[in-house]
Amino acid sequence: MRFLSFHVDSFRYKITEKGRSKVIEEITDVNKENQIENALVFFISIEKSDEIKNDIIKRGINEIEKIAKQLKVSNIVIIPFAHLFGQLSSLEYAFEAFKKMESMLNLKDYSVLRLPFGWFNELEIKAKGHPLSRISRIVE
Amino acid sequence: MRFLSFHVDSFRYKITEKGRSKVIEEITDVNKENQIENALVFFISIEKSDEIKNDIIKRGINEIEKIAKQLKVSNIVIIPFAHLFGQLSSLEYAFEAFKKMESMLNLKDYSVLRLPFGWFNELEIKAKGHPLSRISRIVE
Repeated sequence: MRFLSFHVDSFRYKITEKGRSKVIEEITDVNKENQIENALVFFISIEKSDEIKNDIIKRGINEIEKIAKQLKVSNIVIIPFAHLFGQLSSLEYAFEAFKKMESMLNLKDYSVLRLPFGWFNELEIKAKGHPLSRISRIVE
Repeated sequence: MRFLSFHVDSFRYKITEKGRSKVIEEITDVNKENQIENALVFFISIEKSDEIKNDIIKRGINEIEKIAKQLKVSNIVIIPFAHLFGQLSSLEYAFEAFKKMESMLNLKDYSVLRLPFGWFNELEIKAKGHPLSRISRIVE
């Protein structure tokens, strides 16, 4: 798993059209668009090598939580993102992984915005400019 | 060289504080903040392996131009960006590379916003949501 994070004053998204993949999440009034303030936005790739690793989701959550605690942020955005130069897992594995991450973060009392899997979306990002406002990590 | 591009309706930046590196670009009224509409925003890492490659800047520009022509965009934002999982070049080499890219794109009649090297910055990004609105490339 690898991710790129942006610490933001605000974040907004709105789905636009379906991607070309065969795994496309169902859209409801709840997940078609949303916004959140003072959040950590994580662009995340689930990788091929994650499929055979025990506890990879838990280790990913640990890395996310380290950053969230350091920056004292309790709002988290999860964006499935294919463009981080890794070798991607299957779509099915990735979709399940993102849902598990959302559940685990909710259980830890984070407010989580998870963007629908398989869709293109418009994004509005107001990113802060402090030394830890952009971070990238590979979780193995 | 590797990059991640966002096709945006608008982009704005404002420098905040100096990074910890020893190469810090001088700030003037012209480059401390700026904005641009309908642009391609490129987050770019110059890599260690680029230092010994002939014409790497030219090949990078070719890749940028391919995307710009395909999307019919003539405004380009260059963001020096260390968080794309590559092994980075020296700071001096990277700074020179970014300035060369700016010059070459200007000569080709693109409007270029190059963010100051070595600074943290606030960003405001309104990203479009079409199938080519996010692209990543490794240029070798």
